[in-house]
Amino acid sequence: RIMRPDDANIAGNVHGGTILKMIEEAGAIISTRHCNSQDGEPCVAALARVERTDFLSPMCIGEVANVSAEITYTSRHSVEVQVNVMSENILTGAKKVTNKATLWYVPLSLKNVNKVLEVPPIQYARKEQEDEGKKRYEEQKLDRLETKQRNGDVILPVINPEPHTVGYSQSSLIHLVGPSDCTLLGFVHGGVTMKLMDEVAGIVAARHCKTNIVTASVDAINFHEKIKKGCVITVSGRMTFTSNKSMEIEVFVDADPFVDEPRERYRAVSAFFTYVSLSKEGKPLPVPQLLTETEDEKRRFEEGKGRYLQTKAKRQAQMQQSAQQ
Amino acid sequence: RIMRPDDANIAGNVHGGTILKMIEEAGAIISTRHCNSQDGEPCVAALARVERTDFLSPMCIGEVANVSAEITYTSRHSVEVQVNVMSENILTGAKKVTNKATLWYVPLSLKNVNKVLEVPPIQYARKEQEDEGKKRYEEQKLDRLETKQRNGDVILPVINPEPHTVGYSQSSLIHLVGPSDCTLLGFVHGGVTMKLMDEVAGIVAARHCKTNIVTASVDAINFHEKIKKGCVITVSGRMTFTSNKSMEIEVFVDADPFVDEPRERYRAVSAFFTYVSLSKEGKPLPVPQLLTETEDEKRRFEEGKGRYLQTKAKRQAQMQQSAQQ
Amino acid sequence: RIMRPDDANIAGNVHGGTILKMIEEAGAIISTRHCNSQDGEPCVAALARVERTDFLSPMCIGEVANVSAEITYTSRHSVEVQVNVMSENILTGAKKVTNKATLWYVPLSLKNVNKVLEVPPIQYARKEQEDEGKKRYEEQKLDRLETKQRNGDVILPVINPEPHTVGYSQSSLIHLVGPSDCTLLGFVHGGVTMKLMDEVAGIVAARHCKTNIVTASVDAINFHEKIKKGCVITVSGRMTFTSNKSMEIEVFVDADPFVDEPRERYRAVSAFFTYVSLSKEGKPLPVPQLLTETEDEKRRFEEGKGRYLQTKAKRQAQMQQSAQQ
Repeated sequence: RIMRPDDANIAGNVHGGTILKMIEEAGAIISTRHCNSQDGEPCVAALARVERTDFLSPMCIGEVANVSAEITYTSRHSVEVQVNVMSENILTGAKKVTNKATLWYVPLSLKNVNKVLEVPPIQYARKEQEDEGKKRYEEQKLDRLETKQRNGDVILPVINPEPHTVGYSQSSLIHLVGPSDCTLLGFVHGGVTMKLMDEVAGIVAARHCKTNIVTASVDAINFHEKIKKGCVITVSGRMTFTSNKSMEIEVFVDADPFVDEPRERYRAVSAFFTYVSLSKEGKPLPVPQLLTETEDEKRRFEEGKGRYLQTKAKRQAQMQQSAQQ
Repeated sequence: RIMRPDDANIAGNVHGGTILKMIEEAGAIISTRHCNSQDGEPCVAALARVERTDFLSPMCIGEVANVSAEITYTSRHSVEVQVNVMSENILTGAKKVTNKATLWYVPLSLKNVNKVLEVPPIQYARKEQEDEGKKRYEEQKLDRLETKQRNGDVILPVINPEPHTVGYSQSSLIHLVGPSDCTLLGFVHGGVTMKLMDEVAGIVAARHCKTNIVTASVDAINFHEKIKKGCVITVSGRMTFTSNKSMEIEVFVDADPFVDEPRERYRAVSAFFTYVSLSKEGKPLPVPQLLTETEDEKRRFEEGKGRYLQTKAKRQAQMQQSAQQ
Repeated sequence: RIMRPDDANIAGNVHGGTILKMIEEAGAIISTRHCNSQDGEPCVAALARVERTDFLSPMCIGEVANVSAEITYTSRHSVEVQVNVMSENILTGAKKVTNKATLWYVPLSLKNVNKVLEVPPIQYARKEQEDEGKKRYEEQKLDRLETKQRNGDVILPVINPEPHTVGYSQSSLIHLVGPSDCTLLGFVHGGVTMKLMDEVAGIVAARHCKTNIVTASVDAINFHEKIKKGCVITVSGRMTFTSNKSMEIEVFVDADPFVDEPRERYRAVSAFFTYVSLSKEGKPLPVPQLLTETEDEKRRFEEGKGRYLQTKAKRQAQMQQSAQQ
């Protein structure tokens, strides 16, 4: 579809969150279709996880987004979908790859939302494809278990923070979940949640560096808990790490089933977003260093640095590999 | 994309206007891409006309709309696009054709919006395709000239109207044109206009028969005049004709460039929409007859009857033809 | 226009904020049109103030909102607009008055946004209408000056609050101002701001009493400061007073022009919203009493009580008056 002014920031760059929402909708369609392709209980595919995603090139207002999706692996209870997004300037004909994302879906029964159904197996062109898929499946399963631990943290408010401290840029928004945010099962689309997360992360980044900022990448996101229609969700973000030219922001989503439910507020999702700051000509700008004050902030900064260096090393290894080929 | 609650009426049927808007967006993308495919002045394709469109089967919330578009004819200054819409129930896999629409676009220069550019010619697989296209082109050109005359009429308000008279159900809405309604040239997307027209026509139909109603067809719509960002548009509808099971509603769109422009309010578009009334089981219901009072109303009723009988005759001829094949 | 699922809460009642937004759009159109009716500098009417508004009856999904607006007074630099909203059930034909609102607009030059232009005078049917209008004009002018003082307060966060305290239900959201939120001058529509304010107030009310809640009334709102495109706005609300069956919530809007502007965060608007809690049958429910802890909270509670008793007395006086007529 054509990108509109509402999809973009004032510099004309389409929000990463808009793109993540399109990716998730494409993934939900293809995996729901696949899981219902054999006779049996009707089901809806729910997003369980999005792998780390890099935003390779910016998309602008007036360009057309082409989204294509393909099922690349199925386990007994989950589907791996590969989604590619291309931006196309229909005036010049120029096309660029914007994103390559990998998503994991789980089929939930339409009659009983707590029942996970079986996934019809796909055919692989080559045996190695199945083996590689299985490896990816095992890896993400492990990672999902790990993040389930980490979720207890909360963002506490800070009074009169100094510029460039963590408290200075931290932000949160609340959103009442409406019918258009939800799937047929009455749960929030993963894509809607990711769009709100990107919105908060973007505001944190902009408050920190006061320039035009764009999403550079999103770390793997696990959707441990569903969010029901009528909930109030609180999305909060704080900066955890800055390198010379990038900022890492941790985002939490808490759901508050405050009407008609005996349940307490709970952590539904958390993730790390990386942003860069751009000049008017679209060149990356230096980022003011994050000032850490408490022990926790210093620890999180070091952890963020670890993730940053690891990603950098991986990217260099990939570049070397492709140079050798 | 997946149809959401906001795309549909309270019975769960997707609004005809939502479908028309998707059709027009697909048409605008493919024709803008084509018109810029050769080096030359960059341009944006503007909707000039939509041919008569029948809604063949209803689409529901939760279904996926598949929209495909193809260029079927080019004249020197215009492009004919054929757009097909299929509804797909991704739970059952059932697919149905919802619409087949034909749209005409004209390339306007991005630098000078009043300059119509030349269209790169397409290749035809067979000579007859070109001849048939040319015939369609000549026909629609004639029809466009004719409707340009008819546009002077206005809808006057009626105090305390009797049930089932024209005044009883006539309706109007105003809309302030915002940035997301507009193309790169700053003019309202034809699809946005059609969506508003369908909304008003639907209110007229529902007021008349007080049941669940759905769009059955839209007569050819000509877009004589562009509407600029910042205009206020007034969309008004009145019933012109009822058969036993259908209602015809005439809709006018007037634009009011009330800021920054010396220009008077003008008629931008007009069209006829046909609605049917459905029972809870989705069966067509009888429609209360329209009570005409004035001479003008009686004349319009007869003209509507003429269109109704003509369409019916055409459809029977087509069915006979396909039965013979 | 027809009320959609997204316009309403899960009980099907249309949000007060949606209605306020429609009212403001109608007011902005009629006053901009009036101010441009004589030759002269083109201008856009900006909302300066909304008088106290009562929500007389709820509106539901599927109903049609009829909004009508009329200019009732003009001073040299401002326009008073009266807007009426009726809800119409198009299936039964039943109509009910939902709102009567009075709004004040000021014409700002399209070329120089800081220049207030002169308003063409209107003709009054009777001399008394002009005198009464002048009286209303003077009264609101006084009130606008007063509220300008009061605006320094901030809502501080509370850690681990007890149920039914002020800290327990206080809420805030951030919103990045996008193009669709803005007028031709690039400033946020007053209606967009009011919709966000109602959203936060509604969440505060729902968090306090954990039932289905609806907007009962909004106190006069003054728009002292414009908010520009690209700003981040923080909307925060806290409960100030509860009677047996109503809750008063104070809402602040702060604007943060964080990109490309040397200016600090500033208070743009503040207002009091009153909510009631409804049972599933739509009957008013008793509201848990607000627990005040600090001196400030106790003071605000007493002030809220004062407003509540004053409004109650006014309403009773009006009812007596109309009983006598």
